[in-house]
Amino acid sequence: MSDDDARFMAEAIALGERARGRTAPNPNVGCVIVADGTIVGRGATAPQGRPHAEAVALDDAGERATGAILYTSLEPCAHASTRGPTCATIIAAAGVAQVVAAIVDPDRRTAGAGLAALRASDVSVETGLMADQAAASLAGYLTRVALGRPRITLKLALSIDGKIALPSGESKWITGEDARAHVHLERAHADMILVGRGTYLADSPKLDVRLPGLEDRSPRRALLTRGEAVDGWEILHSPQDVFALRDVNDLLVEGGSATATAFLAADLIDRIIIYRAPIVVGEGRNSVGYIGLDAIADAHGRWRAAVFAPLGIDRLEAYERLRS
Amino acid sequence: MSDDDARFMAEAIALGERARGRTAPNPNVGCVIVADGTIVGRGATAPQGRPHAEAVALDDAGERATGAILYTSLEPCAHASTRGPTCATIIAAAGVAQVVAAIVDPDRRTAGAGLAALRASDVSVETGLMADQAAASLAGYLTRVALGRPRITLKLALSIDGKIALPSGESKWITGEDARAHVHLERAHADMILVGRGTYLADSPKLDVRLPGLEDRSPRRALLTRGEAVDGWEILHSPQDVFALRDVNDLLVEGGSATATAFLAADLIDRIIIYRAPIVVGEGRNSVGYIGLDAIADAHGRWRAAVFAPLGIDRLEAYERLRS
Repeated sequence: MSDDDARFMAEAIALGERARGRTAPNPNVGCVIVADGTIVGRGATAPQGRPHAEAVALDDAGERATGAILYTSLEPCAHASTRGPTCATIIAAAGVAQVVAAIVDPDRRTAGAGLAALRASDVSVETGLMADQAAASLAGYLTRVALGRPRITLKLALSIDGKIALPSGESKWITGEDARAHVHLERAHADMILVGRGTYLADSPKLDVRLPGLEDRSPRRALLTRGEAVDGWEILHSPQDVFALRDVNDLLVEGGSATATAFLAADLIDRIIIYRAPIVVGEGRNSVGYIGLDAIADAHGRWRAAVFAPLGIDRLEAYERLRS
Repeated sequence: MSDDDARFMAEAIALGERARGRTAPNPNVGCVIVADGTIVGRGATAPQGRPHAEAVALDDAGERATGAILYTSLEPCAHASTRGPTCATIIAAAGVAQVVAAIVDPDRRTAGAGLAALRASDVSVETGLMADQAAASLAGYLTRVALGRPRITLKLALSIDGKIALPSGESKWITGEDARAHVHLERAHADMILVGRGTYLADSPKLDVRLPGLEDRSPRRALLTRGEAVDGWEILHSPQDVFALRDVNDLLVEGGSATATAFLAADLIDRIIIYRAPIVVGEGRNSVGYIGLDAIADAHGRWRAAVFAPLGIDRLEAYERLRS
């Protein structure tokens, strides 16, 4: 693989990442088409999942797709749909010479059949380029296919000593403006946001996306509660209800402590994003309660440190659940 | 200043840093003497504070000091002592051509008088090279001169969610081997280590330095307690007793929670070192209790994030108290 290959695939993944949070149940794929070393077509999965990224990119490229190379973050689909021909079919029909797919689609209906169909149509095929980066961007979709539920991210805004509020409940503001803006970016990339009944009653949060140009990206809202439905909110009676969620690749759990505890105790958190403020709170509200841990040794080996970066006056930390 | 100047000063500061924790009440100065671009003498303040770094380096250089440049992390002393002549005197007597001192000694007895004495003896003088790095290494001494007490470091071994132990008190081990080895390095650079009565009774900690070659660096031990003295331990009845400590530049507070809380509530912590393990504990013992904070806004602006680095399976975080 050349540097150019990596550059084009990175562009494809970036296009797909921008679509994350509004393509479910379909994957947020990105695609670029390259002719004579120049990008001649770009595409990402459209909102609600159709058209697919490859179709958008082919439409963008037009006749320039003939003999070109198509880079896509996920294997082109091979399962027929009432909504149109498969991507493998239209790629071959457009005369694309080569397809470079970062990862194979684990969906049983494709799972290599897309690549096989391309090869059968004399399209050259490569896979594996920037597979980790593509899998990271498609984590929501991949989790749903593998585990039958969304990829679930827990967001916490914490002090150095792990507190989310004073004993009074005062939490405005643990973190600074940059961290709070970053939360809105995470929201824009979630299909659904969930809070507990306590947070709903205390803060009546809008959970909207307040970023210029992304206001229309505000995701569906859900409440974790044993109580009654609330207008405009979907209801989960327990964390296990995530297995019944439809059309959600990425679920963002925003708190509070009881909700975080319930999801962690059920081992239903795949990623923890922490906004860590350089303050000591001391006596205050804890971020997490009893999660079933009875020995320190059992706590180890579960989380992989993934991201550490400055974020305004705060720091961004991300941990990913290690599952064997 | 040339790259060479910075390299020689860095070497001087590194020599002084190695002596940190056993020179109090004297500063842990480092010194190199350079002739024709080559280091011909090295020195650091000796244990118990004498001889001074400059005297050691001059002794090391011998006749090669004539016409040489002397780099030192702190202004040479100018106050006469029954234990020998001043460093300014012996530097001039050795025929050193130029002195480069990182920072001026804030001790009222020197405070520029060392540099003035050198100039009066026709030794060329420069200051300010790598001043921040020198001040960081000499922080214990500088704090004692400025505030009349040691520089006080609080060490915490924490989970992601800020816990130091399970509800049962079990804390072995939150952090991994590399972090625990790093604690011993911090101990080696402290003049005194302090724990609370609870930690003493629960763990009867040795607080020794278990690192190859540094076993003799185990610092003095102190207990924070309202109770009686314990053989081999010095007693502090309250955090304010740090103002009465003799011959302590660097004090390391190792816990537990009540002790951390008492020192933070008294605003007597200058630096927090955190060993952060990639684990979630949930219900457990908090690292810090009520420190007098009644509004989140009051918690801000007090701590500067100084260090973030991977440390084995854990992460090292250091925060420094901002004082105006």
